[in-house]
Amino acid sequence: MALQVSVVGSGAENEQRAETVGRLLAERGATVVTGGRGEVMAAAARGAKSAGGTTIGILPGETRDGANPWLDHVVVTGIGHARNLAVVASGDAVIAVGGRYGTLAEIGFALTLGRPVVVLEPGWEVEGTQRARTPLEAVEFALAAARHISDT
Amino acid sequence: MALQVSVVGSGAENEQRAETVGRLLAERGATVVTGGRGEVMAAAARGAKSAGGTTIGILPGETRDGANPWLDHVVVTGIGHARNLAVVASGDAVIAVGGRYGTLAEIGFALTLGRPVVVLEPGWEVEGTQRARTPLEAVEFALAAARHISDT
Amino acid sequence: MALQVSVVGSGAENEQRAETVGRLLAERGATVVTGGRGEVMAAAARGAKSAGGTTIGILPGETRDGANPWLDHVVVTGIGHARNLAVVASGDAVIAVGGRYGTLAEIGFALTLGRPVVVLEPGWEVEGTQRARTPLEAVEFALAAARHISDT
Amino acid sequence: MALQVSVVGSGAENEQRAETVGRLLAERGATVVTGGRGEVMAAAARGAKSAGGTTIGILPGETRDGANPWLDHVVVTGIGHARNLAVVASGDAVIAVGGRYGTLAEIGFALTLGRPVVVLEPGWEVEGTQRARTPLEAVEFALAAARHISDT
Repeated sequence: MALQVSVVGSGAENEQRAETVGRLLAERGATVVTGGRGEVMAAAARGAKSAGGTTIGILPGETRDGANPWLDHVVVTGIGHARNLAVVASGDAVIAVGGRYGTLAEIGFALTLGRPVVVLEPGWEVEGTQRARTPLEAVEFALAAARHISDT
Repeated sequence: MALQVSVVGSGAENEQRAETVGRLLAERGATVVTGGRGEVMAAAARGAKSAGGTTIGILPGETRDGANPWLDHVVVTGIGHARNLAVVASGDAVIAVGGRYGTLAEIGFALTLGRPVVVLEPGWEVEGTQRARTPLEAVEFALAAARHISDT
Repeated sequence: MALQVSVVGSGAENEQRAETVGRLLAERGATVVTGGRGEVMAAAARGAKSAGGTTIGILPGETRDGANPWLDHVVVTGIGHARNLAVVASGDAVIAVGGRYGTLAEIGFALTLGRPVVVLEPGWEVEGTQRARTPLEAVEFALAAARHISDT
Repeated sequence: MALQVSVVGSGAENEQRAETVGRLLAERGATVVTGGRGEVMAAAARGAKSAGGTTIGILPGETRDGANPWLDHVVVTGIGHARNLAVVASGDAVIAVGGRYGTLAEIGFALTLGRPVVVLEPGWEVEGTQRARTPLEAVEFALAAARHISDT
């Protein structure tokens, strides 16, 4: 099984950086997991597909409505915002790119579960997360942390 | 139906303040909703019962194991940390007393759903929350915000 | 804490029997737990309130929209149909009055979790459930099973 | 995106038939979605991998513990039995192979959400499901129903 990295966040202004994150993850062989919808989620998946990677979207609703078109596999949870728990739990590491309150919940859940969290600056400042200045740094931090977890 | 206020948080050092919050809420006729377990959750429920109030605990597991003894009604969700969503969604307002990452997820969810959030200082600093210096201030802010929401 | 009995089901044709079930449960001191919405859920809560009982509704959405007016306490889960798990997990026993596929999921979950299930005839025929011919029989079977569980 | 078919059920005595179901689905290009654990879930994934197919496991816990080794992608939900909703919601169709109460909940949820359900005999008898006598028949029924849904 490939490493899985969850990319969370929102905000149209963060799409370009999210797309780069997705592409860099795919180039390094990691599967990109997201919440499956628009903005940062769509951009990360689009970036991963541009590099021939694999993408999984974990949707909140009861159907695939609202899924972005860059998903290889779609998980339809039917549990609304509680799917945020599944998004971060499914990652060996989590990268947050922008985002508002839903992202804050995801960071809280990821840290509760012991998943490494990298915040691509600017972004939520939460003790216990690692901060990255560039998409490349975010991806390298996340993969290093994920491999460290996998080894232990 | 009485107003319902969710009290979230953790940390043994916050129990006394949480108990005061619970008592003050009950004295003002609000039902106290918590995650149903120990520390802040137990203290808030204990405080509410000391004033003859009503308490609801929303548990993460599949049984009542771990429930504190100050609950009038217990909801057993079976959904683990995702029950944090139900805890805050069930409040007309939310008061956070201390707490770590689970509380951060609850604050994120509460703000996502538009529930007013009062943070009793010291505590997580999150834009969009109201800060209170004392339990009394926290309770008054929460009830004012809850009534404002109910009126609109 | 009072015994909690979950009443599940649907169908306008089952409302009268559900109301009797709710009333009989309340007369015997049990709290009535339901999914909080219409038809059987509303009727069971209405019956409980007619006897001065206590009612809890566990709603699927992110707000109280759709809650029936006979609820003392409302839990807003935000997890859609997955709240069916919480409805049955919160009961010391479960009584099914009519119902279609959502009720079948609830019976499946209740039996998975070891909750006693009484089906008021006619209704889903599932091995492992107890069948009752009248509301009174359903209530007596449910309370006996709930007390048996509580004692062990 | 490939069609996704969820295979649910349990019971060691059903593993051989589940493995055939998984293999036949993969041979026809469908992705196999399961609850990610043992018995029928493991057998279906193993069958799919034997034919070079793609498999997704949707786990109940907060880690990958208990995942079978035939999964390409693992979704860790953290929501316990409520993940059954996600398992069936993620399928364009659902095939039930044996199974006990958890499977009954899955059938109930699938029918609630309008997903076509094929029961490989013997198995739960539920109105609204289609019955198949052989794994081949189950797969053909499921794919025909899934394509019919996708076309509408």
